[in-house]
Amino acid sequence: MSGIGRRGFLSGGALAVAALLASPGRSRAETGPASAGPASPGLVEDLVAANRILVDQGVLDGYGHVSARHDRDPNRYLLSRSIAPELVTAADIMEYDLDSNPVDARGRTSYLERFIHGEVYKARPDVLAVVHSHSPSVVPFGVTGVPLRPLYHMSAFLWPGVPVFDIRVASGGMTDMLVRDPALGRALAQSLGARPVILMRGHGNVVVGVSIPQVVFRSVYTEVNARLQAQALALSSNVTYLDPEEAKKVEVSLAGTLGRPWELWKRKALAK
Amino acid sequence: MSGIGRRGFLSGGALAVAALLASPGRSRAETGPASAGPASPGLVEDLVAANRILVDQGVLDGYGHVSARHDRDPNRYLLSRSIAPELVTAADIMEYDLDSNPVDARGRTSYLERFIHGEVYKARPDVLAVVHSHSPSVVPFGVTGVPLRPLYHMSAFLWPGVPVFDIRVASGGMTDMLVRDPALGRALAQSLGARPVILMRGHGNVVVGVSIPQVVFRSVYTEVNARLQAQALALSSNVTYLDPEEAKKVEVSLAGTLGRPWELWKRKALAK
Amino acid sequence: MSGIGRRGFLSGGALAVAALLASPGRSRAETGPASAGPASPGLVEDLVAANRILVDQGVLDGYGHVSARHDRDPNRYLLSRSIAPELVTAADIMEYDLDSNPVDARGRTSYLERFIHGEVYKARPDVLAVVHSHSPSVVPFGVTGVPLRPLYHMSAFLWPGVPVFDIRVASGGMTDMLVRDPALGRALAQSLGARPVILMRGHGNVVVGVSIPQVVFRSVYTEVNARLQAQALALSSNVTYLDPEEAKKVEVSLAGTLGRPWELWKRKALAK
Amino acid sequence: MSGIGRRGFLSGGALAVAALLASPGRSRAETGPASAGPASPGLVEDLVAANRILVDQGVLDGYGHVSARHDRDPNRYLLSRSIAPELVTAADIMEYDLDSNPVDARGRTSYLERFIHGEVYKARPDVLAVVHSHSPSVVPFGVTGVPLRPLYHMSAFLWPGVPVFDIRVASGGMTDMLVRDPALGRALAQSLGARPVILMRGHGNVVVGVSIPQVVFRSVYTEVNARLQAQALALSSNVTYLDPEEAKKVEVSLAGTLGRPWELWKRKALAK
Repeated sequence: MSGIGRRGFLSGGALAVAALLASPGRSRAETGPASAGPASPGLVEDLVAANRILVDQGVLDGYGHVSARHDRDPNRYLLSRSIAPELVTAADIMEYDLDSNPVDARGRTSYLERFIHGEVYKARPDVLAVVHSHSPSVVPFGVTGVPLRPLYHMSAFLWPGVPVFDIRVASGGMTDMLVRDPALGRALAQSLGARPVILMRGHGNVVVGVSIPQVVFRSVYTEVNARLQAQALALSSNVTYLDPEEAKKVEVSLAGTLGRPWELWKRKALAK
Repeated sequence: MSGIGRRGFLSGGALAVAALLASPGRSRAETGPASAGPASPGLVEDLVAANRILVDQGVLDGYGHVSARHDRDPNRYLLSRSIAPELVTAADIMEYDLDSNPVDARGRTSYLERFIHGEVYKARPDVLAVVHSHSPSVVPFGVTGVPLRPLYHMSAFLWPGVPVFDIRVASGGMTDMLVRDPALGRALAQSLGARPVILMRGHGNVVVGVSIPQVVFRSVYTEVNARLQAQALALSSNVTYLDPEEAKKVEVSLAGTLGRPWELWKRKALAK
Repeated sequence: MSGIGRRGFLSGGALAVAALLASPGRSRAETGPASAGPASPGLVEDLVAANRILVDQGVLDGYGHVSARHDRDPNRYLLSRSIAPELVTAADIMEYDLDSNPVDARGRTSYLERFIHGEVYKARPDVLAVVHSHSPSVVPFGVTGVPLRPLYHMSAFLWPGVPVFDIRVASGGMTDMLVRDPALGRALAQSLGARPVILMRGHGNVVVGVSIPQVVFRSVYTEVNARLQAQALALSSNVTYLDPEEAKKVEVSLAGTLGRPWELWKRKALAK
Repeated sequence: MSGIGRRGFLSGGALAVAALLASPGRSRAETGPASAGPASPGLVEDLVAANRILVDQGVLDGYGHVSARHDRDPNRYLLSRSIAPELVTAADIMEYDLDSNPVDARGRTSYLERFIHGEVYKARPDVLAVVHSHSPSVVPFGVTGVPLRPLYHMSAFLWPGVPVFDIRVASGGMTDMLVRDPALGRALAQSLGARPVILMRGHGNVVVGVSIPQVVFRSVYTEVNARLQAQALALSSNVTYLDPEEAKKVEVSLAGTLGRPWELWKRKALAK
């Protein structure tokens, strides 16, 4: 993988990002909503790392996306242009308003399903990062009615329950399965409610968090939990899940340890 | 893997390919059917990349093959000589007529089952690329009567149904399981009909497409779908598959996004 | 992975470790218990290698830890500061007393669950090395009541039976699932008894041994056995496990061969 | 993995091997049976490659071994000294007589279970190469009574049936599970009969062939078949296996293609 030129992707990063994101000279009418100005270079670096980490961990493949709310303006978010997550660099990060209009597209293609991100940021002021993936072990839970439940402490954050969004119900008819407009995004955000994870029937899932490290952690352990839960159910129909009280307590305890895997994952992702 | 000398496999590619494929000075009687002339270097490069990508993605191992219809003559197709797909370079690509006679073998061995490709190209003018693999997760579906069905949007292209070709029925007796002559190839193509994928009992499968990126995409997500469908069936006998209408719609929507994984896959394959 | 700078982690290792571990000039009242002095550089090297090996073998991810009893003082043990195991170098190894107080923390964070190690060393004088992991294939056995049993000779050491520690029972109420104090560590050590492995419901497992190579070997083959046992139970409810007499005999025979995988694993781990 | 110094392992290989294997000046009484003289360097190179290939393909881990009959004397065979297969170089290859006495041990440790090889070579003059492994997906078939059967053409060689050797029955009592003497080796060879593969209850399996490439091919596809058969049985109890007549025919057809994966596997193994 070292052959695909990842090293040095941040050379001159801060300046480049500033240039890319901030175009104060352009009028909004011409080019979209006004920019909130350059995001923190650290946030952009973490967002680039998150794309690669989620590939390394088997959550994303050539599809899926991760976004972060802009750190200067809660009404803007950052998301790569439409490319495979493994290839994302700082120069690919675009700025969107919460209606998911690009601030300064300059011909770059947007992900069709960016509305997932915008509508979740609107509905959930606490959320600062969003992942949409087709995380493989999770997909079967979205099509069988078997609820995803926390099997062990690492996935304790699943304790509020994991709903399944069926786009056919939300839209009242047959769709192309994609959350391709604000209305579908709103319906998804409504089904998510205050929870951290929602499955999408015949599609994938959405995970939200208060930071990039947290949303990455949750995405990874949602995938692991799904795999382990399927294995446990194959062994026995009588599986002991975490009690919600246990889960709430360990979620708090683990919150302070997220830096441990994050440091590892980021180091490996950026070394490639 | 960098040790196996993939880098630079295209050095002087266009010229070499031209020289290899076009032998206008030779008479057909001596050496096989006439050449359509050199194929586009881009097509040959994509075909080489497709071989490696399908190995990277776990669809091919030391066996299996991928072909493309010649871009100058619909009555010719391109396929590697008989080597492991991971080792294929531009110099290994041979030209065949639709009866699967090599244009200019020069001592190179042909795959025994090249008739799969030739007969599918004859029967399906819309098809421009063909993959034959022993894609592992798919094999069990070919021997159990459990139909492969699209579980999620990425494998929506499976909506027309996936038939199983039983060579014992087609040949009316015991064979060596290989599609080793035109008649068996024709029988397979007939069973395939207008569909994108067919399983071969006790053997593997064939996937077709309108382009190399599409046939690679379909091969990868046929494998993934088989894995996820088996997992879903282990969780519950009550699995919700894509509705055909949903599937048709999302197939159209995703058609425009194939370049996203293709760019990633090709970059990684050619970097090795 | 070569990008994360593992080579040379032992440069000047012995001296550095001596400096880190021995702080005879400091009074205990200020900084914790007295040091036993520098551990053998070979022991520290093996402990660093063990961290990486257990990641390479899929037993540890960004969490979990492995310790060794100090070779100069049975009342001290060695354990990394709180970082991901894959990143551990000799400079991260800290010294603890058996109450799990750090000898010389110097601001370094300790693992919350270090009490597992200290209390096992107290209760089991024969134990010289301890692994705590969330070894994935093992987790389902901890939540289903299906006993982990030795399926083949490599996991013969499981013959005394593998108990499941339920922290809810041990604590008499809802906890955060973590063995975060001496009392919980003592309860776990008591449930372990004289056995080599114990599962922790909804969490992971603990493996003990008379040396670092042995505890690594046992951790690896506990994971493999869990995977194979689940596969066997999926094939048939009638599985033949090792007879305890067979298991005891082969455990003795294999004891002399541990150097074989250990040499391989260590070489690969330290080459990264 | 490139860090473990595999490149150049054959430098001066032919001479070194000649020196290692042939010790005509030593009397047999002192050092074991007489040497057959140096084996062909190509055979030794293939044997070294086979060790690494079987690790690359997941058949061997830190344990297991592969041997070849000596090409100058059918009463001698070649097998590495007792180290992990991934580390084997030409200098580690030892010569044994068919009673499994080393010709010239010079302090090198022999595998405890070398009698598997010697006794199979005695009983089966057609066999030129033997693999003993704990190939993971195969182990469950050895402890459940579910017969391993050829699911697809790649594993057609399994058509004669795969017996299970139970060392407890063969020895008439509890053993340490190891084939550690000639009598147990003979019992195993007798159970194998004329077949290509035998399982060992609670242990692993033995695969034989007429060449190193064939025994490697068979070992790899025995593992793959076991995995796919387990998946098929999870989908349905009604699995269609190859008809023996089909299997015999395709076994003949594939015999001519073994060079295809072998070339790939060897190139990758020796490049490390």
